[in-house]
Amino acid sequence: MAKKIRFGLVGAGWMGKSHASAFRNAALVFRSRLPEIELRAVADVNLESARTLALANGCSRWTTDYNEIINDPEIDVVDITTPNDTHFVIARAAIAAGKHIYCEKPLTLDSRESQILTDEANAAGLITLVGFNYLMNPAQSLARHLIQSGEIGEVISFRGIRDGDAAVDPLAPFSWRHDRKIAGSGALGDTGTHALSMAQMLVGDIDSVFGFTKTFIKERPVSVAGSGYSSRADLTRMRAVENDDTTLCMLTFKNGAVGSMSCSRVATGRRAWLTYEIQGTKGGLFFTQQRMNELQFYRHSDPPSERGYKTIYIGPEHGIYSAFHPIPGMQIGYNDLKIIEVHELLTAIEKNMPAFPDFEFANKIAKVVDAILLSAEEGRWTALDELHAPSTVRE
Amino acid sequence: MAKKIRFGLVGAGWMGKSHASAFRNAALVFRSRLPEIELRAVADVNLESARTLALANGCSRWTTDYNEIINDPEIDVVDITTPNDTHFVIARAAIAAGKHIYCEKPLTLDSRESQILTDEANAAGLITLVGFNYLMNPAQSLARHLIQSGEIGEVISFRGIRDGDAAVDPLAPFSWRHDRKIAGSGALGDTGTHALSMAQMLVGDIDSVFGFTKTFIKERPVSVAGSGYSSRADLTRMRAVENDDTTLCMLTFKNGAVGSMSCSRVATGRRAWLTYEIQGTKGGLFFTQQRMNELQFYRHSDPPSERGYKTIYIGPEHGIYSAFHPIPGMQIGYNDLKIIEVHELLTAIEKNMPAFPDFEFANKIAKVVDAILLSAEEGRWTALDELHAPSTVRE
Amino acid sequence: MAKKIRFGLVGAGWMGKSHASAFRNAALVFRSRLPEIELRAVADVNLESARTLALANGCSRWTTDYNEIINDPEIDVVDITTPNDTHFVIARAAIAAGKHIYCEKPLTLDSRESQILTDEANAAGLITLVGFNYLMNPAQSLARHLIQSGEIGEVISFRGIRDGDAAVDPLAPFSWRHDRKIAGSGALGDTGTHALSMAQMLVGDIDSVFGFTKTFIKERPVSVAGSGYSSRADLTRMRAVENDDTTLCMLTFKNGAVGSMSCSRVATGRRAWLTYEIQGTKGGLFFTQQRMNELQFYRHSDPPSERGYKTIYIGPEHGIYSAFHPIPGMQIGYNDLKIIEVHELLTAIEKNMPAFPDFEFANKIAKVVDAILLSAEEGRWTALDELHAPSTVRE
Amino acid sequence: MAKKIRFGLVGAGWMGKSHASAFRNAALVFRSRLPEIELRAVADVNLESARTLALANGCSRWTTDYNEIINDPEIDVVDITTPNDTHFVIARAAIAAGKHIYCEKPLTLDSRESQILTDEANAAGLITLVGFNYLMNPAQSLARHLIQSGEIGEVISFRGIRDGDAAVDPLAPFSWRHDRKIAGSGALGDTGTHALSMAQMLVGDIDSVFGFTKTFIKERPVSVAGSGYSSRADLTRMRAVENDDTTLCMLTFKNGAVGSMSCSRVATGRRAWLTYEIQGTKGGLFFTQQRMNELQFYRHSDPPSERGYKTIYIGPEHGIYSAFHPIPGMQIGYNDLKIIEVHELLTAIEKNMPAFPDFEFANKIAKVVDAILLSAEEGRWTALDELHAPSTVRE
Repeated sequence: MAKKIRFGLVGAGWMGKSHASAFRNAALVFRSRLPEIELRAVADVNLESARTLALANGCSRWTTDYNEIINDPEIDVVDITTPNDTHFVIARAAIAAGKHIYCEKPLTLDSRESQILTDEANAAGLITLVGFNYLMNPAQSLARHLIQSGEIGEVISFRGIRDGDAAVDPLAPFSWRHDRKIAGSGALGDTGTHALSMAQMLVGDIDSVFGFTKTFIKERPVSVAGSGYSSRADLTRMRAVENDDTTLCMLTFKNGAVGSMSCSRVATGRRAWLTYEIQGTKGGLFFTQQRMNELQFYRHSDPPSERGYKTIYIGPEHGIYSAFHPIPGMQIGYNDLKIIEVHELLTAIEKNMPAFPDFEFANKIAKVVDAILLSAEEGRWTALDELHAPSTVRE
Repeated sequence: MAKKIRFGLVGAGWMGKSHASAFRNAALVFRSRLPEIELRAVADVNLESARTLALANGCSRWTTDYNEIINDPEIDVVDITTPNDTHFVIARAAIAAGKHIYCEKPLTLDSRESQILTDEANAAGLITLVGFNYLMNPAQSLARHLIQSGEIGEVISFRGIRDGDAAVDPLAPFSWRHDRKIAGSGALGDTGTHALSMAQMLVGDIDSVFGFTKTFIKERPVSVAGSGYSSRADLTRMRAVENDDTTLCMLTFKNGAVGSMSCSRVATGRRAWLTYEIQGTKGGLFFTQQRMNELQFYRHSDPPSERGYKTIYIGPEHGIYSAFHPIPGMQIGYNDLKIIEVHELLTAIEKNMPAFPDFEFANKIAKVVDAILLSAEEGRWTALDELHAPSTVRE
Repeated sequence: MAKKIRFGLVGAGWMGKSHASAFRNAALVFRSRLPEIELRAVADVNLESARTLALANGCSRWTTDYNEIINDPEIDVVDITTPNDTHFVIARAAIAAGKHIYCEKPLTLDSRESQILTDEANAAGLITLVGFNYLMNPAQSLARHLIQSGEIGEVISFRGIRDGDAAVDPLAPFSWRHDRKIAGSGALGDTGTHALSMAQMLVGDIDSVFGFTKTFIKERPVSVAGSGYSSRADLTRMRAVENDDTTLCMLTFKNGAVGSMSCSRVATGRRAWLTYEIQGTKGGLFFTQQRMNELQFYRHSDPPSERGYKTIYIGPEHGIYSAFHPIPGMQIGYNDLKIIEVHELLTAIEKNMPAFPDFEFANKIAKVVDAILLSAEEGRWTALDELHAPSTVRE
Repeated sequence: MAKKIRFGLVGAGWMGKSHASAFRNAALVFRSRLPEIELRAVADVNLESARTLALANGCSRWTTDYNEIINDPEIDVVDITTPNDTHFVIARAAIAAGKHIYCEKPLTLDSRESQILTDEANAAGLITLVGFNYLMNPAQSLARHLIQSGEIGEVISFRGIRDGDAAVDPLAPFSWRHDRKIAGSGALGDTGTHALSMAQMLVGDIDSVFGFTKTFIKERPVSVAGSGYSSRADLTRMRAVENDDTTLCMLTFKNGAVGSMSCSRVATGRRAWLTYEIQGTKGGLFFTQQRMNELQFYRHSDPPSERGYKTIYIGPEHGIYSAFHPIPGMQIGYNDLKIIEVHELLTAIEKNMPAFPDFEFANKIAKVVDAILLSAEEGRWTALDELHAPSTVRE
């Protein structure tokens, strides 16, 4: 572990801060089990933001030009946390410069772009990782293990939900999240992809989809100040919402399983509610992100009078949890997932092996999203194979 | 309340026994609040079954010919608990004879038949009730009340599930439930209708559906002895399963809400699992039959720091519960739902007002089922209006 | 099963109605598996109540004098559902007349009386059963089975709770429940005994106790109309409450286990909340009456990464449930517990074997209650052996 | 906020690492809202441990002599994470040197020592904080707010549990935790204090206690290698366990409330299970550490048919959560509690106001523990006032 891994951060907003913290904490949590890490530079369109974040993390270089990071020969990893619509261009340039890439989700706005990035990163032999942090939960590793070891038999059913109430107020102003050009789809791309990523990881490749989208709040007041979750509205000027408030879909998997996923950003009563139920021929699993330190497991081979879903609390027996706490019952939180994500990235770079989930994985999710949108438009089942290779990508 | 209500029971199996008990218990629970009840005769193809059930309920007449009941001028109500495929003929004859009808669900095997029964019963001015007993739960009355009084705003989303594991064993023998001619559809008609009936009752009329069906266990051994849940299999002879192990569907409602329902009879880990979540613009509701004495309720108008789903335990404050128990926390069970159902029927007859849920209601559910099956076959959204008036009904 | 069992009911209030229904339903549910049952007479201080209940149950004899029942040679079982303070005298007379006895809980107001009844009933070789109906739950049979078969190892800890909010309103009027002479203790005797009976049944004999009682609402307005839960108060006249609003106790068991029980009638937020947790050296059990169709079970011998509490839903695999429903997931309710209780009584009489829970059992609970009250008064641990044989019993 | 706060860390084990991380993360999470922080030196009996921890946190000084830290005029805060039995001496020396103190729980082994430290720290006007990190949860702040604003009326009942299974294996070797001289009491001091600290914070000062202790596993094999949770046993040599496996207690509070607490280290099936239920005259609260991002709240003034416990998920509306995440539903974990604790300490130092929970608070908990142990020994209620001022303290 002689080699130090040096990274440059592009994007100094909330998620940039979160990544920088995760790198520092990974060093504290995993210590000598990880290569040494160094933050070399921070780029942001807002120089002050870049500067603040850099200084807070013991880094003395900041810039408004991300190319400085991409072209810096002293940097091994480019970490992208900028707005979604910029990921493609920055990541593509980083690939061209031979950098490993750590990119926030979604990787791109559509699967034509994600296919290009995947192809080019693979061709260049680079390590990539996309920030589907919920997959990093030791509870998910346990779920994977139980499935792969046959404990629930052949998986036949997946049911996923991702509901939130962030957009439930019809007077909350129009934001980038409602703008198809910047955000792509709405609830589906922003949050439904979390549930889809769990389906992909735990059940496997999706074969075909049927989608349905609905926008309940058809227009929203224009924002006059602030941005994101704290902006204020001008109630006299309305703008049409351009993407889905809710998306429902059905899924068929290559292994014969079937499933459904629904997501909503106007789900009154649900706050970052992310659940799945997986049924196999011999057992089942249930998980909800609201109780992210628990996995429910059912084994049909138990004696008939003793069958039931069991609630397993994550503890030191569950792999990477033990790096955080020596005893069970102490909770892993959201920030810890990011730390595990960084551990995964650095370990992959050190060993020169693919990280999980990489561009390839993100590309699969992007294709599922595109197929759902196409299906919803045309009102028919759509095979993922129908999505052609990219032809008209913006460059 | 001078009038006594006299009924004849057609079908002396498990459900016939359940109905007879419900009539007797309704008298004990509601006493003078209900008209007097008398069981006049029991019919069953198995005379011994008819006799046993009759005697156990203080009734001295039994027969193998249900026409004796239908044509008995001393009988006011014909109670039908025979196999599903016989409901249509018996009910139609009972209507022709001017009897009120209490029929187990499903009313018929398809909506052409249910439409005929509905039209004819309406034309004859008869009281009808179909045994969707889960709707009789005081928890459902509370849900209805909360919705109708605007507590959750406009309903925009319904998510229903009915999962069971009764057919999870691939070696469990072929039974009438797998036979399309006798059972109609599989998981959908047998159990999914419970979830659909909750959607219909709580959200309202369904406009269009998209359906998907799947049969995982494509053939089953022939049964050599016994029937129903306790039969034994001949593993050397297999018979093709003719209906769905699982059905998924999406729903749009006339009031603009959208939703989904999924049901399965091979849902490992779930036993008569029946749940719904209803989201409105101002609140939400969650219910699971496994905890049938509870309703979860969310009100978005609570102060932001005090918002959350509340678990309401059903008690004397919740209408008809108080007829059972003077104090809260004592559980209503399945058998009590049947007693409430009988109370509904008798009260409706006494007041000469429609009962709930009547043939009209059951006909709506039948149309939804037929539309789902048609949609699944054709792979496209199907409007309920596409289902034409009956033309070629077996008579 | 030639013999018919004939019973007379003493007390025609809510509980009398409940017993009468249970007898009739037991016949319907268990059919030929039970001897034939006949209600021969009903006694109540209110003749009209006796008459109504008798007629509703096909019985043509009613009286205000319970001695008519006790002395009727045609009656096998005396069923006592009168107010608590009358149980002793009626039961003693019934024993003297050689009747089997079915008595509502509490058997008596204190353990001197219950000891006498127990001794005399045993001496006369009579079958007795006391209505601790919550013990009749198939979930409790499962719990017993798991403990007895060693699945949780040696039991070392019991934690029981019985909380309700019936008396939480300080302006709810003084009732017989607050009157030490009629009710005995308050929350402890009325409801805490439910939790204690579970400790006795599942863990075993109690050795010593430490008790603490508290009356939060020291006086209540006098009632001017009605009675029980629906009476009205005269706020100008107050009467001192004579027994405990809440009782806490610690328990040591003869087998070395330790435990605690707390009960309250002013437990804001809890409605007939009855729970226990039992920990053994190899596993644990958790139950709550609010979800009476579930038992939680933990087995420490599971693989470390798969340990967790499992939720078992009661179904046909769990003994007597199968008499009610052929399929799982259909709920047993409170009334069904009473039916099982009657099944237990009649089976015991038919086989001439002790019923469970009998006077002996109820006497043990009464001793625990008396020891808790004595301990609370003296502020020290009290052994059950300190309670002397009865000397000054009212006769 | 010009002033930088400099601290020295005494103890470089698991908890020392946790504290160092918390300081660094507090800077990242709270940024300019906190004074600048600097780790000046690390002391540990194991020099290598001190060195590693120092270097990992950008600190260039380490030592085996904690006096170097205590006497360093450049250090403002002494942070003590050494074994429990050393806290008293180190803290007392730090007070003498005029340092603010951040000390892991328990502050001392008994209340005579904690009283001395409290008196001396108060006399010196120093800021102190003891690491009862579970109290730092925004869910607890919400609970406090709801109680203080009268939402649940007058508190009348507290029921606390702290159960874990760390010592459930009888062959797990004897460790310092079983040694009265090093650990003080067993389950009570190590873990029961967490539940007691919640009682103290939320209900208030405790007046008197009744305690009961039990050691189920009376001897354990001697450890031959390793320490703490991972040590190995020599099964041929046994050593007597010197403190409680489980403690049960009853509590009376100065405000008239009553309660109970039980804790166990042999609680099969429970992993760091920490729960409380608080009942007031107008409402109730329920919390479990296993679901530390939730608080259950009941308000009796809701309409009778809408009463129930509500599950509130912690989000940005709940104070300090918003420093971690801008959106709800993202979980706070154990490590975040330590960050909040550091925030509390630094804010208190900056504003020169008492921190919570300080030595005064810890001293109250120590007195409760001592009173419970005394009561258990003497088998009688014990008032906290009976614990005399310190006279024979080791110095």
